[in-house]
Amino acid sequence: MDDKLMLMIPGPTPVPESALRALAKHPIGHRSSDFIPIVAEVTENLKWLHQTKSDVLVLTASGTGAMEAGIVNFLSPGDRVLVGCNGKFGERWAEVCEAYNLNVEKITADWGKALDPEQFREKLEADKDKQIKAVIITHSETSTGVLNDLEAINRHVKNHEKALIIVDAVTSLGAVNVPMDAWGIDVIASGSQKAYMIPPGLGFVAVSPKAWEAYKTAKLPRYYLDLGKYRKDAAKNSTPFTPAVNMYFALQETLRMMKKEGLENLFARHQRLMKGTRAAVKALGMSLFAADEVASPAITAVAPIQIEADKIRSLMKKRFDIALADGQDHLKGKIFRIGHLGFVSERDILSALAALESVLLELGCNNFTPGVGVTAAARIFAQPSQN
Amino acid sequence: MDDKLMLMIPGPTPVPESALRALAKHPIGHRSSDFIPIVAEVTENLKWLHQTKSDVLVLTASGTGAMEAGIVNFLSPGDRVLVGCNGKFGERWAEVCEAYNLNVEKITADWGKALDPEQFREKLEADKDKQIKAVIITHSETSTGVLNDLEAINRHVKNHEKALIIVDAVTSLGAVNVPMDAWGIDVIASGSQKAYMIPPGLGFVAVSPKAWEAYKTAKLPRYYLDLGKYRKDAAKNSTPFTPAVNMYFALQETLRMMKKEGLENLFARHQRLMKGTRAAVKALGMSLFAADEVASPAITAVAPIQIEADKIRSLMKKRFDIALADGQDHLKGKIFRIGHLGFVSERDILSALAALESVLLELGCNNFTPGVGVTAAARIFAQPSQN
Repeated sequence: MDDKLMLMIPGPTPVPESALRALAKHPIGHRSSDFIPIVAEVTENLKWLHQTKSDVLVLTASGTGAMEAGIVNFLSPGDRVLVGCNGKFGERWAEVCEAYNLNVEKITADWGKALDPEQFREKLEADKDKQIKAVIITHSETSTGVLNDLEAINRHVKNHEKALIIVDAVTSLGAVNVPMDAWGIDVIASGSQKAYMIPPGLGFVAVSPKAWEAYKTAKLPRYYLDLGKYRKDAAKNSTPFTPAVNMYFALQETLRMMKKEGLENLFARHQRLMKGTRAAVKALGMSLFAADEVASPAITAVAPIQIEADKIRSLMKKRFDIALADGQDHLKGKIFRIGHLGFVSERDILSALAALESVLLELGCNNFTPGVGVTAAARIFAQPSQN
Repeated sequence: MDDKLMLMIPGPTPVPESALRALAKHPIGHRSSDFIPIVAEVTENLKWLHQTKSDVLVLTASGTGAMEAGIVNFLSPGDRVLVGCNGKFGERWAEVCEAYNLNVEKITADWGKALDPEQFREKLEADKDKQIKAVIITHSETSTGVLNDLEAINRHVKNHEKALIIVDAVTSLGAVNVPMDAWGIDVIASGSQKAYMIPPGLGFVAVSPKAWEAYKTAKLPRYYLDLGKYRKDAAKNSTPFTPAVNMYFALQETLRMMKKEGLENLFARHQRLMKGTRAAVKALGMSLFAADEVASPAITAVAPIQIEADKIRSLMKKRFDIALADGQDHLKGKIFRIGHLGFVSERDILSALAALESVLLELGCNNFTPGVGVTAAARIFAQPSQN
């Protein structure tokens, strides 16, 4: 049966019908008066989502473009930066910084482990002459399903006083609490195909007043990603370059949905989806790649024991048209990843788990009692929501 | 009446239903096997459209992102470049180059006039020690409706032998002949919301073997716009960063339409739309901002005489829901621009002209005989197509 694809990857995530319909509207002129209220509403709701009074700027770019904008607007060649690396996207931050000749110092952890905030504290406290210009980390590491302790790392950055904190929140924003202003996060990069519930094509960069101060003296070259241009035009509810207008139509819809659901409920839903998924994986006798204490509410990475990950993924696709994600880089074929980010309900998790059990049976897996996975999730979902 | 907007601006251009429907499909995983044939087909058809055997790479970015990629991948700080400036987009090339500390020498012409190829010849012939690394021009200057003589300028660049020719073909590609390989164009940048007939959100950069040679030693920093990464992944029918998958769905549709129409017919249609529009504007006693010999087949800029441009534009929108474009920068309010690029038929031009006559009457304009505009275009359209 065609056209029954169920996306359980960490992006693109499922898109609601209302957003797909909005996407299919005929475009309008981006310099027309009709576009102004759309930009105005989207901008206001993006600020709500980021819990900030500062700027959230929209780029026609994927998440990596947003990440790069987060670097090139606030730093100068040779600047010393601490980059947290415990997965593919942490490594990408380091690559972006190296491409721009920053002085990169990596703070690493094994893939599947969380970054140790103490290592950041030590480096920052030792930096008496304030040479560290930025601390750059990935909040939810999509490649491993680990949620780094942004709050603790950020606390050490705040004690340093000078360094900016620049955060890839691509798979955390909208799924877990990232109170930009309350915590004093300086730069947050994210992308449309995640909790935003629309297809890939837009990147977002939120910028604190402290980061705008750094912008004034930052010397890395930029043009298309020059956030000053975006800020200037955002003040007129416009954009410096032709924006992806149809993506704005869709984003307008999903931001309304998110606002209606409410931040607390959004976060609570993702917590429940994560807990249900993890309880099921454990009950099915498979290993969770990330420990409970550092688990991302966006994605669960599973290291199967009896059966190869690729066999499971491939049969899930073939038999049930459910797309799961492969591991990345050295984890290819070693793990599979279940996305539960964005437009995902408890029913979706139950479907996916029931399909997973069926696939495990078909593959001859005999180390679990059929039904235990679905039941473990169902028990979580049967508990009243805390919100 | 709502939802009857007719886009007659130079972008976004009208989008066919089939592309809008494709845009509204549920996204699929960009790393899934289902996406590979889509990338393969789109890539093949992009090469057909560019008349090249070399690479055409797809970026999630607007046209300016594609332009910037055309600079940062092939040049190094301090490189001497000649930039043709006779409108807003020529000026933008110069701004991009200056943002990256290139040694920019502008060759200018008044807005509304074409660049003089002789000025390029002189500079290039005088450059005995081959310090000019690139000649950068806008083919169809969207801000004024002027088509620069790419073929002649390129001939002088070829005689220089060392310099690359880098071209903004954002509103020319697909509307006028740009035979990349036959002419030896090195870099061509374009954007999705133009002759491609889909909404804004994708940028395209075509790269010649000579440009790839320059890439090897080019030192400008880049990451998201690093075309080497795109080339590497394009070989596997993939992309280095999450692509705008829904835009690919739409692009797949419109490239098929373009291929079915055929290059010669595409170019001939745009010629007829241009000629019909220009004949009507003349008959209506208004000034054409660009001369016939240098007129762009994508867009006609009109300098009205009796009535202010803004009054005409505003009444066209109010009475007939037809969007015309304003002038840009110092031409704001001085001209209006009629886009006839992409999914535009002769019927559309007749509609727009009939509406324009009606608006001129309503505004009390008395220097034309009602009907002459539409009739002038109709006479052009009554002639048999040369293809």
